[in-house]
Amino acid sequence: MKLYDYFRSGAAYRARIALNLKGLDYEHFSVHLTRAGGEQFNPEYANLNPQNLVPALLDGDAVLIQSMAILEYLEETHPEPPMLPRDPRGRARVRALANIIACDTHPLNNLRVRLYLTGEMGVSADNAKVWIEHWIRLGFDAYEKLLTGDPATGTFSHGDTPTIADVCLIPQIANARLNKVDLSNFPKLLKIEAAANAHPAFERALPANQPDAE
Amino acid sequence: MKLYDYFRSGAAYRARIALNLKGLDYEHFSVHLTRAGGEQFNPEYANLNPQNLVPALLDGDAVLIQSMAILEYLEETHPEPPMLPRDPRGRARVRALANIIACDTHPLNNLRVRLYLTGEMGVSADNAKVWIEHWIRLGFDAYEKLLTGDPATGTFSHGDTPTIADVCLIPQIANARLNKVDLSNFPKLLKIEAAANAHPAFERALPANQPDAE
Repeated sequence: MKLYDYFRSGAAYRARIALNLKGLDYEHFSVHLTRAGGEQFNPEYANLNPQNLVPALLDGDAVLIQSMAILEYLEETHPEPPMLPRDPRGRARVRALANIIACDTHPLNNLRVRLYLTGEMGVSADNAKVWIEHWIRLGFDAYEKLLTGDPATGTFSHGDTPTIADVCLIPQIANARLNKVDLSNFPKLLKIEAAANAHPAFERALPANQPDAE
Repeated sequence: MKLYDYFRSGAAYRARIALNLKGLDYEHFSVHLTRAGGEQFNPEYANLNPQNLVPALLDGDAVLIQSMAILEYLEETHPEPPMLPRDPRGRARVRALANIIACDTHPLNNLRVRLYLTGEMGVSADNAKVWIEHWIRLGFDAYEKLLTGDPATGTFSHGDTPTIADVCLIPQIANARLNKVDLSNFPKLLKIEAAANAHPAFERALPANQPDAE
């Protein structure tokens, strides 16, 4: 498989963790999102992914885009070890947690949105920080509440092995740390972060451990 | 089943379409998102959904939140008629199309984001319109390109029956029309809209046909 990746991208980070969890080797192709106006706008890449976003995953002649669709594809084509529980209610819980990050937190704070906010919208850099922190806090507040008092919560978000919820959560925590968001109100999230830090699939996916890290 | 719903919510609209496609009856509970500061902040509702968003779906004693997780749950618990193709590549294509809307378009434009933009961020109402149109156009541009020239595209986004891609697309088109976005550059999306308009599951889910419509 070939992963079109960027070390700083939270969505690409999810794909890296999932590939590692599944024990799948992949070739890394860096798509630098800020150099020379953004390599994601190069015609060859735009042809793979007309959204001009990372990641994209090539599996044979299949071109896969959108990180959440990639996670589900990897789960379906390489079921072991599972990233989703077996029961529909458990799966719904894991997907809901994942989507708190993937739909309602990350997309509000990614590079293209920050640039548009401080560019076309004329929002100051200080206010852009307020914006970023606001959406991270809202997402993490809900996530923490859903973990609290639910017997399904374990070492990870759902049980004692990583699921797609953790695959989404960990890159978002890394992003929150980059943005110096105070995380002391989220003790359950911090416990999961500690568990992930001790897991080789998460460790190898760290932005700092990527070939294009700066 | 019980659906906590609001006629204007694009995410709740997805859940309504999916329930109708599966032929499932449900009780409707309206959560008015703007009356008296927003009924989604009432303690009883916040207890069901700590994100204070709609929809939430009760199935027996299971509380389901996040519309995309709800769609997958309905697909797993009521497989017929399918809202996802059988092959992993097809499923990945449908989920990617769905997530162009569910991750990268809708969350940038929903009520809480528009309020925060024009409130705390001090963005003018005119600029907020520019913002809304910008993200809708970007999402629709990519969606239209992915439909074009792909033999998997049919009457609907993937084949000739509705999938979760269409379940996400149609409420986003309705939202674009509310915001008077020019859709003439998206002929394939407009064809799918016409197909959905002729489909009873979509027709019954229309905002105007809900008990809480204003």
